[in-house]
Amino acid sequence: MLEQLKQEVLEANLALPEHGLVTFTWGNVSGFDKGSELVVIKPSGVAYDELKADDMVVVDLEGNVVEGQLKPSSDTATHLILYKHFSGIGGVVHTHSPWATSWAQAGRAIPALGTTHADYYYGEVPCTRPLTEDEIERAYEVETGNVIIETFKELDPRALPGVLVYGHAPFNWGKNPKEAVHNAVVLEEVAKMGLNTFQLNAAVQPIDQFLLDKHYLRKHGANAYYGQKG
Amino acid sequence: MLEQLKQEVLEANLALPEHGLVTFTWGNVSGFDKGSELVVIKPSGVAYDELKADDMVVVDLEGNVVEGQLKPSSDTATHLILYKHFSGIGGVVHTHSPWATSWAQAGRAIPALGTTHADYYYGEVPCTRPLTEDEIERAYEVETGNVIIETFKELDPRALPGVLVYGHAPFNWGKNPKEAVHNAVVLEEVAKMGLNTFQLNAAVQPIDQFLLDKHYLRKHGANAYYGQKG
Amino acid sequence: MLEQLKQEVLEANLALPEHGLVTFTWGNVSGFDKGSELVVIKPSGVAYDELKADDMVVVDLEGNVVEGQLKPSSDTATHLILYKHFSGIGGVVHTHSPWATSWAQAGRAIPALGTTHADYYYGEVPCTRPLTEDEIERAYEVETGNVIIETFKELDPRALPGVLVYGHAPFNWGKNPKEAVHNAVVLEEVAKMGLNTFQLNAAVQPIDQFLLDKHYLRKHGANAYYGQKG
Amino acid sequence: MLEQLKQEVLEANLALPEHGLVTFTWGNVSGFDKGSELVVIKPSGVAYDELKADDMVVVDLEGNVVEGQLKPSSDTATHLILYKHFSGIGGVVHTHSPWATSWAQAGRAIPALGTTHADYYYGEVPCTRPLTEDEIERAYEVETGNVIIETFKELDPRALPGVLVYGHAPFNWGKNPKEAVHNAVVLEEVAKMGLNTFQLNAAVQPIDQFLLDKHYLRKHGANAYYGQKG
Repeated sequence: MLEQLKQEVLEANLALPEHGLVTFTWGNVSGFDKGSELVVIKPSGVAYDELKADDMVVVDLEGNVVEGQLKPSSDTATHLILYKHFSGIGGVVHTHSPWATSWAQAGRAIPALGTTHADYYYGEVPCTRPLTEDEIERAYEVETGNVIIETFKELDPRALPGVLVYGHAPFNWGKNPKEAVHNAVVLEEVAKMGLNTFQLNAAVQPIDQFLLDKHYLRKHGANAYYGQKG
Repeated sequence: MLEQLKQEVLEANLALPEHGLVTFTWGNVSGFDKGSELVVIKPSGVAYDELKADDMVVVDLEGNVVEGQLKPSSDTATHLILYKHFSGIGGVVHTHSPWATSWAQAGRAIPALGTTHADYYYGEVPCTRPLTEDEIERAYEVETGNVIIETFKELDPRALPGVLVYGHAPFNWGKNPKEAVHNAVVLEEVAKMGLNTFQLNAAVQPIDQFLLDKHYLRKHGANAYYGQKG
Repeated sequence: MLEQLKQEVLEANLALPEHGLVTFTWGNVSGFDKGSELVVIKPSGVAYDELKADDMVVVDLEGNVVEGQLKPSSDTATHLILYKHFSGIGGVVHTHSPWATSWAQAGRAIPALGTTHADYYYGEVPCTRPLTEDEIERAYEVETGNVIIETFKELDPRALPGVLVYGHAPFNWGKNPKEAVHNAVVLEEVAKMGLNTFQLNAAVQPIDQFLLDKHYLRKHGANAYYGQKG
Repeated sequence: MLEQLKQEVLEANLALPEHGLVTFTWGNVSGFDKGSELVVIKPSGVAYDELKADDMVVVDLEGNVVEGQLKPSSDTATHLILYKHFSGIGGVVHTHSPWATSWAQAGRAIPALGTTHADYYYGEVPCTRPLTEDEIERAYEVETGNVIIETFKELDPRALPGVLVYGHAPFNWGKNPKEAVHNAVVLEEVAKMGLNTFQLNAAVQPIDQFLLDKHYLRKHGANAYYGQKG
């Protein structure tokens, strides 16, 4: 069942330690199958070097396990909320990658300080508000998803494929699991350079809107001219 | 004698350079055998790439060598104090891992700034007071252990498996040598992100108690639901 | 056509990930053939581990593709401007290497704070002014080249083989592709140490002119005495 | 001639990139043969991965090449001054290791902020004064040596096996080439943690003298009890 997606999700999970985004099991990637509306996700707490495609767990959008011997990631409910609300995404990734997590812990959005950021994120990467006690006790992982949706009320998740959850860590997404991980790598790099930029210039401002437009649209949309496609 | 524990202690010691926690021989792990009340510990000043299980030294809780050709770690007395006072621990590790050591040198406890911290440490990782001249001259390693015990007078070492010794470096523990090293890796990661978080927000506060509760209890205790157990 | 230069350009491109200067495809190197006035450059958006010498694209100084199946780097126009205006250079490299990019994002030139800098850069590494909206919309990559030329109006590009483009990232050059990459590695190292130096001493001043002279001229020019040549 | 020392000097030079202390050829190690009063040193500007024992150059204390096809390191004169004035040392190393170099560029001595420092350096690692224009133009490398000697007028080089040359980088020494490199690795680690410590506590003070005594003397001198010797 969904063998190809399981393989993609496996490979995307294995890419996390390769890119230095995770320590131990602190990360998980899922993929969404549009036809069946099913989600394939990493099992909870299994070490990356022991993961096999068959370990991947298949759940429906309500979180029921449809196939798999293992328990799905404890963050599954958050992934599901994102698939339900962000139309068109096909992969979600959560890590505690250290630079992005430092911004999440500081409760700060990452402004667009340069073209590296603008190539992938069309504006600042937002940070959610803190969850309330009630939200955390009632349905922590669901409410983590909900506060992300709330943060994106006026934002386009296709143009801003990531978020910092306050006091916690980043979530990223993309059109498939591989692209979600790609966006997570970019976020980590942008978070590192952003911190260093503020060390060098505490009063630095985001880049001009027209430079942001230029770089983002050079890689995305109808008039993109980066790469070999089109 | 205690062949299996020697092997575990060897592997836990070898994990230190693998995780980037040690330079040269700046670290040591021990394990405790509850039945015999004996401790297996790394020999002093031996390079990791030359260590064999048979080099491990067996000592009793008073520090007498029971088996082994080599001198035990110069920090043995500190390990023994921890085994005597922290009931239920089965492994102790000491390193000079650079980020945690920087906090110890700064004389600052590491507050719980995010969920990565909360997943393993149920509150701030404390820093001891400085040792007095008398303590250092009389019995340095024993008093290093004693000041850790003093620091935990009102704290639960099972919920806070690590400490920063003022002007020195961290000690960690766990239910066995492997878990002690795991906790040391987490501490280093948390120390790194904590420093970066303060760079981004000098006024940052610890996360809310209810978020700390949620994350710690998601992984620990009767109602844990992370991972494949239970 | 230009087989040897293609091989040199390939190797110089592959050196970028080896030296940790690039994430994904965020970098490109070109080489200039003085005889034919042709430029060999990396194709756009191709992963480094799939690059072959035959993938390199040959363009003339007006940007017309002379040979090659793939589209040239989207930054090609910037490279061409540099070859047209900086006489004697034979290689150009552009990366988003994180430390140098942090200075570019901060909009700060890197002063000559030590002899490591002085060994390769005869004075501070300048940062361009921001591009205007008109420049960006009219001909972004050409104007990126033009603002570099403007920045060097009173500077010698042979003695200062690199620049920070404001809000963007560094460009470097050299007498051939390999030397251009060498200069990019030095810039990244100097950028890292420069940031750390300011953390330690916010009021630090550039080194004395006579020390700058000594180190630069020890390695460059008629009286150089470093290395095995001469 | 001096084959064993050449081998030791080769291995010590190769240890520099292994420990991440050098970029390109930015480092050199020498060894001193007490019997013949000859020095074996790395040739100038040769890449580490091409170095062979036979490439090492033998010079006398006046800098005359006694054996070798290649030019000795451009820093040879500095090494020779150290051998002449610091009795008992048998190895010297110079690198531009980034953390220690950042302190040198900042013009700051590294205070003894913790026991890692105290295990190897009995007090703060000093920084020289800047060289004068006259010194640099007259005999740069010799005067670099002389300003180190001047800095140690009231200090014991055996208890402080390293120095920061103002605006330049560190020099280290030891009883043989291997120990000199060992001390350089320690200095880099101490420099990194020292910077981070100041980030966490700008008002941090050196550790107490009695803790410095305890750690230094635990590893050095007649009453040392660290390691397997004695």
